[in-house]
Amino acid sequence: MPLHRIFHPPGAFSVADKTSLSERITKIYTNVGLPAFYVVILFIPIEKDSFFVGGQSTDKLIRIVIQHLARQLPDDQRKTEFSEKYEEAIAPFIKDKGYDWEVHVEEVPPEMWRENGLIPPIKFPEIEKEWARLNKPIPY
Amino acid sequence: MPLHRIFHPPGAFSVADKTSLSERITKIYTNVGLPAFYVVILFIPIEKDSFFVGGQSTDKLIRIVIQHLARQLPDDQRKTEFSEKYEEAIAPFIKDKGYDWEVHVEEVPPEMWRENGLIPPIKFPEIEKEWARLNKPIPY
Amino acid sequence: MPLHRIFHPPGAFSVADKTSLSERITKIYTNVGLPAFYVVILFIPIEKDSFFVGGQSTDKLIRIVIQHLARQLPDDQRKTEFSEKYEEAIAPFIKDKGYDWEVHVEEVPPEMWRENGLIPPIKFPEIEKEWARLNKPIPY
Repeated sequence: MPLHRIFHPPGAFSVADKTSLSERITKIYTNVGLPAFYVVILFIPIEKDSFFVGGQSTDKLIRIVIQHLARQLPDDQRKTEFSEKYEEAIAPFIKDKGYDWEVHVEEVPPEMWRENGLIPPIKFPEIEKEWARLNKPIPY
Repeated sequence: MPLHRIFHPPGAFSVADKTSLSERITKIYTNVGLPAFYVVILFIPIEKDSFFVGGQSTDKLIRIVIQHLARQLPDDQRKTEFSEKYEEAIAPFIKDKGYDWEVHVEEVPPEMWRENGLIPPIKFPEIEKEWARLNKPIPY
Repeated sequence: MPLHRIFHPPGAFSVADKTSLSERITKIYTNVGLPAFYVVILFIPIEKDSFFVGGQSTDKLIRIVIQHLARQLPDDQRKTEFSEKYEEAIAPFIKDKGYDWEVHVEEVPPEMWRENGLIPPIKFPEIEKEWARLNKPIPY
């Protein structure tokens, strides 16, 4: 469900960094009961001469695009809380290392979302719990 | 119009697989009269140590992001039908090969969409047919 | 804010091309007062055998996906004007070189957008001017 595309300078993250960062991001969602496997994070390296900010080539920016499907946050307060939690999760690997960063979240309607061909049980909390417990999609 | 980004483990598809898969996806749209050239499919390989699901590195997931511009599906039934057709189109190259997969479709308003600088004739069925027949955008 | 993903055949642009193209795109936004650093442009090369149009492999198409956050264009006229300015900005490096191209713009609600962890001052024109003058986000 949440899809995180992290566009980064090729040398920004070690494999250990990517693993820790992914764990920290995943936890934001599992803490509120979502199945861990919903959280997909793609690290996409962009060479300096293909990464432009303000018309200038850079290797100092991390640009993160997030898409939410399983939950639409209902009001500004909840949206702000999400952003705050997210900033906290990523800080050790981005802010604390001196990078600039930009993040935005898109909320995508879930009608044409499928996991292994199955309609995710967003309207069936008991089934969603089962998916979370097994950490995989199962027919229902 | 439809833009399909297929994020995949580097070894998941041969060139023949990508070609067949693209043909099958394209056919979903040409079958309802859309010009073939509207359908753009990008295969984007993601290395295992940059592809995380549930906080763990993976080479077993295909993640597909689809954007629709020329048509907004008007109701849940039509959306479900699209998802079913899509699942059928991709199954031989994904499900049948043992991968996990996740798909979602976004419907993007078409006001700032251009093909070779031209406004696509979504309100002019006769012209759209001509674009489909010629398989390229022509001024009108 | 504006995020431009330019999917292109690997040989389409020299570094000088990418720089000039980025400068021309950035100018569209700085001309209306936005901070230059808001404009992020990613050039993402796609190999011919991973780039499909109408079911066929291609090295002749440039596919551009734009996301706007800081401003939602309020009516069709303004949207059309944006598209016209954009087409003009990119023409020397795409149309004039014989490529086909397709562009679309998405308008993303800005509630969960952050720059270096800060809420961009879209409701505070004086602060936005200061960000533009300094060309970086500062706390306010």
